[in-house]
Amino acid sequence: MTHKIAILGASGYTGAELVRLIATHPGMEVVALSANSKAGQSMAQAFPHLRHLDLPRLVTIDQINFADVDLCFCALPHKTSQEVISSLPQDLRIVDLSADFRLRDPAAYEKWYGNPHAAPTLQKEAVYGLTEFYREEIRAARLVAGTGCNAATGQYLLRPLITARLIDLDNIILDLKCGVSGAGRSLKENLLHAELSEGYHAYAVGGAHRHLGEFDQEFSALAGRDVHIQFTPHLVPANRGILATGYVQGNADAIHDALHDAYEDEPFLHVLPMGETPSTRHVRGSNFCHVGVVADRVAGRAIVVAALDNLTKGSSGQALQNANLMLNANETEGLMLAPVFP
Amino acid sequence: MTHKIAILGASGYTGAELVRLIATHPGMEVVALSANSKAGQSMAQAFPHLRHLDLPRLVTIDQINFADVDLCFCALPHKTSQEVISSLPQDLRIVDLSADFRLRDPAAYEKWYGNPHAAPTLQKEAVYGLTEFYREEIRAARLVAGTGCNAATGQYLLRPLITARLIDLDNIILDLKCGVSGAGRSLKENLLHAELSEGYHAYAVGGAHRHLGEFDQEFSALAGRDVHIQFTPHLVPANRGILATGYVQGNADAIHDALHDAYEDEPFLHVLPMGETPSTRHVRGSNFCHVGVVADRVAGRAIVVAALDNLTKGSSGQALQNANLMLNANETEGLMLAPVFP
Amino acid sequence: MTHKIAILGASGYTGAELVRLIATHPGMEVVALSANSKAGQSMAQAFPHLRHLDLPRLVTIDQINFADVDLCFCALPHKTSQEVISSLPQDLRIVDLSADFRLRDPAAYEKWYGNPHAAPTLQKEAVYGLTEFYREEIRAARLVAGTGCNAATGQYLLRPLITARLIDLDNIILDLKCGVSGAGRSLKENLLHAELSEGYHAYAVGGAHRHLGEFDQEFSALAGRDVHIQFTPHLVPANRGILATGYVQGNADAIHDALHDAYEDEPFLHVLPMGETPSTRHVRGSNFCHVGVVADRVAGRAIVVAALDNLTKGSSGQALQNANLMLNANETEGLMLAPVFP
Amino acid sequence: MTHKIAILGASGYTGAELVRLIATHPGMEVVALSANSKAGQSMAQAFPHLRHLDLPRLVTIDQINFADVDLCFCALPHKTSQEVISSLPQDLRIVDLSADFRLRDPAAYEKWYGNPHAAPTLQKEAVYGLTEFYREEIRAARLVAGTGCNAATGQYLLRPLITARLIDLDNIILDLKCGVSGAGRSLKENLLHAELSEGYHAYAVGGAHRHLGEFDQEFSALAGRDVHIQFTPHLVPANRGILATGYVQGNADAIHDALHDAYEDEPFLHVLPMGETPSTRHVRGSNFCHVGVVADRVAGRAIVVAALDNLTKGSSGQALQNANLMLNANETEGLMLAPVFP
Repeated sequence: MTHKIAILGASGYTGAELVRLIATHPGMEVVALSANSKAGQSMAQAFPHLRHLDLPRLVTIDQINFADVDLCFCALPHKTSQEVISSLPQDLRIVDLSADFRLRDPAAYEKWYGNPHAAPTLQKEAVYGLTEFYREEIRAARLVAGTGCNAATGQYLLRPLITARLIDLDNIILDLKCGVSGAGRSLKENLLHAELSEGYHAYAVGGAHRHLGEFDQEFSALAGRDVHIQFTPHLVPANRGILATGYVQGNADAIHDALHDAYEDEPFLHVLPMGETPSTRHVRGSNFCHVGVVADRVAGRAIVVAALDNLTKGSSGQALQNANLMLNANETEGLMLAPVFP
Repeated sequence: MTHKIAILGASGYTGAELVRLIATHPGMEVVALSANSKAGQSMAQAFPHLRHLDLPRLVTIDQINFADVDLCFCALPHKTSQEVISSLPQDLRIVDLSADFRLRDPAAYEKWYGNPHAAPTLQKEAVYGLTEFYREEIRAARLVAGTGCNAATGQYLLRPLITARLIDLDNIILDLKCGVSGAGRSLKENLLHAELSEGYHAYAVGGAHRHLGEFDQEFSALAGRDVHIQFTPHLVPANRGILATGYVQGNADAIHDALHDAYEDEPFLHVLPMGETPSTRHVRGSNFCHVGVVADRVAGRAIVVAALDNLTKGSSGQALQNANLMLNANETEGLMLAPVFP
Repeated sequence: MTHKIAILGASGYTGAELVRLIATHPGMEVVALSANSKAGQSMAQAFPHLRHLDLPRLVTIDQINFADVDLCFCALPHKTSQEVISSLPQDLRIVDLSADFRLRDPAAYEKWYGNPHAAPTLQKEAVYGLTEFYREEIRAARLVAGTGCNAATGQYLLRPLITARLIDLDNIILDLKCGVSGAGRSLKENLLHAELSEGYHAYAVGGAHRHLGEFDQEFSALAGRDVHIQFTPHLVPANRGILATGYVQGNADAIHDALHDAYEDEPFLHVLPMGETPSTRHVRGSNFCHVGVVADRVAGRAIVVAALDNLTKGSSGQALQNANLMLNANETEGLMLAPVFP
Repeated sequence: MTHKIAILGASGYTGAELVRLIATHPGMEVVALSANSKAGQSMAQAFPHLRHLDLPRLVTIDQINFADVDLCFCALPHKTSQEVISSLPQDLRIVDLSADFRLRDPAAYEKWYGNPHAAPTLQKEAVYGLTEFYREEIRAARLVAGTGCNAATGQYLLRPLITARLIDLDNIILDLKCGVSGAGRSLKENLLHAELSEGYHAYAVGGAHRHLGEFDQEFSALAGRDVHIQFTPHLVPANRGILATGYVQGNADAIHDALHDAYEDEPFLHVLPMGETPSTRHVRGSNFCHVGVVADRVAGRAIVVAALDNLTKGSSGQALQNANLMLNANETEGLMLAPVFP
């Protein structure tokens, strides 16, 4: 059986990544693609790498007949997403890739995004899309909120440690290095090749990055108390990849055991042997996440490192994995593509 | 039915690329991997991006039981390849990715490679592996010689024009730009990141590149007379990709028609609309080749441009396509992966 | 004696490169910097790499008192430049880096730039800024027109060959590879890091690039007849650099001799030993241009290759070299910085 | 007055960087260059970007007449360096760029480098080359030990905070991102372009990096007690640059004040306004170091970030700055080159 798929916001990188993945998915067919500013173009004009595929032309959202759609991926900018989803049929299965439905608390949403939420009922309905930890809720959900790509990476590192109470909750530092595509396809001077290549820097330093809203929500819920980690993202001259380096206080062997136990049956999460750490180049273009643990020379401290591809496991791959669950398909369908190296 | 596959020379880039592609091929299983200098290691040690796969450990060639193998990919260095293949069972299907069996004429081989051929009988038996032009011979072959990656790109551009006698055979210039992985995983100072990134240069200038042996052989055979093109490769700071820019004398519209006619039924070759030219970034990680034609402002001249991924369509993807033919499988099986962009 | 310098359009890459070079020039002081859209900012805000310099704040052009200025660099977009320069004092020495005064023939200007020239008198007055070939005119000029960066590279390769009548004028092909900064700091989707890095392509194929106007003007004047070369630029994922590969018909040794003779006393032009070709990485950040010649295997054909840094020798370095001449300073002052490698 | 300079180990990146800087230094002349494996070659063969300079040919060390040398830079591999320097004239001024003389305690040297020191007397004599903090000792020294490039970056961040007792000495984390040239020009598989570009990873995780020996020595001496920081370096696909992100516990404003006070008269150290952080791209190719401070959202925590160019301020620029002091030249001579951006 083939499910009919719509993708809203198909002219951005996460939209294109969804099309790339669905191209070899045996149970899905793309029946509608929207991109307001490029409506009327073929997908090959917006993304020539998809030229070989037989795809519908880009249209505006109101040109889509959602009655023919089994599941809709929404890859729109945040704020736009909540407005659009409010206007879609109330029984349509939706995987949203924006930030709009990640935070359950309206006050937290307003704090991090600067405006009141325009669709609080939907916000309440939405299930947080970190597949490995919300699998059953996602299977039953109508609306799933894709996580932030940095937020996913950090949670893969830290959730099992918080749950097992293995680390000091007041001393968690996450130093993250992300690739350029995480910033999207928007026209900003600081995203030009000549500005970015051959250099790197920290940004949103000191606790200003919005993905902290997700960390606070999820880690506090797990711990049963407020948890506020320190988090500094850095922009690195590579197109894909997130490498998260976590500094925690706890026993490294116990931490490695906890991660191993948490993920040993997971198809996409691989815990490396004790003492090894991952590289973004070894997950590029794939839905895999590699995790490593090393004991620090300072007693009682450990370094935990995770690597994933921000566009795949951090966003569109996660979205497809969730869609598979919502449609009762095999969870790994279309997602077992090996990483592309070199 | 699942065919049992061996890959010799699995610790190089073309070996890893074969494993990546076969990973999602429904009709093949890797049963043996050799890598003399890394024998004993797991494939995940040599290539951590393949960690998620259940693969045999790297062994030496003499440890492989070829009776259990349906088809063997040989991704060894040239010269080594002819020695090894001579010693393999005489009825084993082999796709060789080295340069050893590309030239049919022993004198031409010796001219370009500097030593007499050690296996002239095999050289005679081998079929040239440019799939779209030797399809029937490959289907019937036991030993197929993968083409040079540059040689494939140039031939996709020029063969239909020579066959249709549309261009001046004495004025063909091929200016080619190739990515770094084409040089392999060997330890050379000029392949270090600090040497290569942020700069580019021509090499083997003036007709010194060995792939000219293939151009001479194939184009002369097509034309029924000697054809000696000019060919200058350049090394560009990107890991994958070949962009070939051809300067020819002939009518651009007729050239575009000839390319269109030649490739319209080909699954992997896409001729762009007249006046458009391709980019390597839009075929990266895939088996597709994009071809474009533009008329020059100088009357009677045309520019033809082709882009492919040297590791996929230029090497391992081509090899797998040929293996599919040799095993009576669907020719595109395992090869419809969409390019990875960005 | 210190000359007072103004730079108009200082928030672009050529403006910043001028400031970088003047920073270690013993006879120049920057007294005014304009940047309309960033007026009011410090130069360190627009370009943090210039933070260590004591520079005037960015202003609008009308805020500059040109009576205090000895020489003005104009690094504005084309078309804007002709309007602005028309309004500047008629006795102010100006080096213009835009395209506005490169073409002497108003009809040629209109053909390539699509609009009639707004300052035809100035156009007549301007001297073409290819230093090594217009040195005496530049020394005496009030208004010098910086050349196109590609146009400079191609002319360094070809002028001596045309002058010495060593090559077939009807068979000149220039295949050029340029870095990203040549496209400037403008916000275009195709200049984003995620779009450009790891891929490359041809553009303005078939004779559409505006620098052909300069080639036509200069080569025809040298030859005393119309010369129309073929010219295909390619965009390569590196920030700086132009590599021009020329395909000509003539005797390679004679060509090498002619280039050697033309440049042996030039401080910035280095002809490599016969058979060697240059790399952009070896001129990066400098005012040097390396040139090489190789005989092709096809008799009577040669490949000539030149490399320079588009922002330095191709633009701001050339402008400073010309300014030195106009101010009776040592021509090489401030320009002997060694290339930065790696 | 022109000082005569020898550079041992001139075929590596730090050797070439020394030559690049000395090329525009008005008071130094390179009279000897050694490179054992490339002896007999011209410097232009080893480093074509230095082609424009009139330099002595590469020789072996024993071919150098040190009587004609005023100061010798030793850019040899560690361990080799101590052997070579032992055999040089005892009154020759030497700036060593290797790791051999950085650690004052023979036991610490043996712990971090795995072998007993072969020149303990010289080890005692050597002055640690972190210019801004050992200026007077360096002025009087005969033998100066260049610091590790990571060690320099971390110390610029942390020394003033430790001295002023502003941070918790038991909770200092340094997460560092360095460019590829820091690993030198050695032939290692993991330094190939195809391996490194487009990916990044941590290495020497958990306290295994040798530069920790320097941190321990210097910070403990400053604090008057043992200080053992946590330090994780990461390799990033850029040729030049170190970005050090420090996580400390203390008052951010006081920290900013302390850094500002420490560096306000320093020509090469620039403390950014409170709340801003630096980028490696804005110091590339220069001797400058930019430092920034941000208060974390977690009360009592601060993030401090420093950026410098590992080959310049982190190595060869530092060495030249020290040589200037040793030769009673202006400390900034030859070092005020502006960064190269883009």
